[in-house]
Amino acid sequence: MIDQPFLDRVESIFRTVQDAQIEALRAFDGALTVTRDLWDRPEGGGGDTRILTEGRVIEKGGMNFSAVQGDVTEALKQQLGTEATRFAATGVSSVLHPHNPHVPIIHMNVRYFALDDGTWWFGGGIDLTPHYILPEEARAFHADLSTICGRHAIADHPAFKAWADRYFFIPHRGESRGVGGIFFDHMGRRGDVDREDALAFCHDLAGSYAAVYRSRAEPFADVPVSQEDLHWQGLRRGRYVEFNLVHDRGTRFGLVSGGRTESILMSLPARAHWTYDHQPSEGSPQAVTLEWLKKGQEGVDWSAQ
Amino acid sequence: MIDQPFLDRVESIFRTVQDAQIEALRAFDGALTVTRDLWDRPEGGGGDTRILTEGRVIEKGGMNFSAVQGDVTEALKQQLGTEATRFAATGVSSVLHPHNPHVPIIHMNVRYFALDDGTWWFGGGIDLTPHYILPEEARAFHADLSTICGRHAIADHPAFKAWADRYFFIPHRGESRGVGGIFFDHMGRRGDVDREDALAFCHDLAGSYAAVYRSRAEPFADVPVSQEDLHWQGLRRGRYVEFNLVHDRGTRFGLVSGGRTESILMSLPARAHWTYDHQPSEGSPQAVTLEWLKKGQEGVDWSAQ
Repeated sequence: MIDQPFLDRVESIFRTVQDAQIEALRAFDGALTVTRDLWDRPEGGGGDTRILTEGRVIEKGGMNFSAVQGDVTEALKQQLGTEATRFAATGVSSVLHPHNPHVPIIHMNVRYFALDDGTWWFGGGIDLTPHYILPEEARAFHADLSTICGRHAIADHPAFKAWADRYFFIPHRGESRGVGGIFFDHMGRRGDVDREDALAFCHDLAGSYAAVYRSRAEPFADVPVSQEDLHWQGLRRGRYVEFNLVHDRGTRFGLVSGGRTESILMSLPARAHWTYDHQPSEGSPQAVTLEWLKKGQEGVDWSAQ
Repeated sequence: MIDQPFLDRVESIFRTVQDAQIEALRAFDGALTVTRDLWDRPEGGGGDTRILTEGRVIEKGGMNFSAVQGDVTEALKQQLGTEATRFAATGVSSVLHPHNPHVPIIHMNVRYFALDDGTWWFGGGIDLTPHYILPEEARAFHADLSTICGRHAIADHPAFKAWADRYFFIPHRGESRGVGGIFFDHMGRRGDVDREDALAFCHDLAGSYAAVYRSRAEPFADVPVSQEDLHWQGLRRGRYVEFNLVHDRGTRFGLVSGGRTESILMSLPARAHWTYDHQPSEGSPQAVTLEWLKKGQEGVDWSAQ
């Protein structure tokens, strides 16, 4: 059985987080236009997609809440390794693409999954994709995530950081998507985690999203931008598109299983570029960034940089 | 055994076609810059990628020749349904993205595959993706393909057209990629086709590529372009990116099996756009195009339009 009162509480907290984080983003990106798109899922449940456009800092982004339930299809059985027949899932996810190439892209997701065989789990994470990597910025970002994890005994920061490094890797490019962050999944599935602790961690993580981004974004929002910067931003966004469409399990599963396309592809940038075999000139900030990204799936210990 | 002399001949013909078609494209798009990128495949063979940029008509495109051979990996065994141990494959593929949104995108591919159990087959096709669909242009394009097929008893135009309609469909959008064309695969695999006939058809098809495109492209290359046209072009190119990265079997197989990323992603446009849930205004050329694209995977009988 799925514990409905607990599910209701998770949904309610996730909805509250969505509202609060959008307010917090508006607080530092005043011009941000927020459009609401409420939708139903024919098979059960629905969502509340908020589209964020044309802020001072943010060019295009979104924050999506969804709460869906339904039969466990054959595909889902295989993906989840379960024999359960009904599922419920709720989550908040967000991607923010800034105007200024000197401001990084950020992504956040928290989600709760419950099956009618009584199993449940949480998953999620936050990761950062700078167009230009500055080690001190990556270090500060990871320090913020480490602080959040430090408030929760169940949040194993080194393990979650390594998980993000493995996950946000683009094999066909041999590049990391960005500087990583944290990623976790199946938290509680083996019955080794108290669900209140897991919920509190997810709540804290998602509730820190706007503040974490503001620290990395605001100082760079007005840095002068050249045509070369904009082209490079387009190329890095192209990699973001490639990762999401070719490799990201959530995106691919959503698209092939009949998920809501517009809400799933909310993560794509307003504009992306591709140039055949683009090679930045030696020693340029673009070349330095590429070097960091090519360190491999083991990632970089940013705290030591 | 793989018949090496025949393979050599196919390769030689495909190389000749690549050169001839690039010359034919240059003949009507004089400013076109052609850059050559010769590459080796560590596991055997290699290719000759020609990058086409900044023509008067073509903004970004390419024409790739490759001739590779190697062991049949487990993944390939599954994909091909074979127990053979060695393969050879050669092909020419091309995508052309024009500057002007009133000029369509075109794609062509011919390929030959041989296994050491003695089986072999040809595959390929040409398909057109207008940013704005004009029925008379789609009709003329399909008439050209019908004429080419009509010169070859083995080329079943209605079947190949239906195959393209099914193949170039974007399920997560419920849209066709464009107006289709022809698509065929496994030609000769069942031993029911003479290989000389199949080669002659592929040669003729690839050899008609530039002329087929010129007829559709040249009359529209200087049509005045608005900002709205460019945005719409960006959105349609975004769909092209989605199809290629999410669904196209060749692209996905290449990327996950360690193919040469730059040559595979040569098909992507210089620039693509995404706008959340973009809805063209009623009765606009964009809305009319979308209506045609939403006719479903059965496609449209353009000869009757």
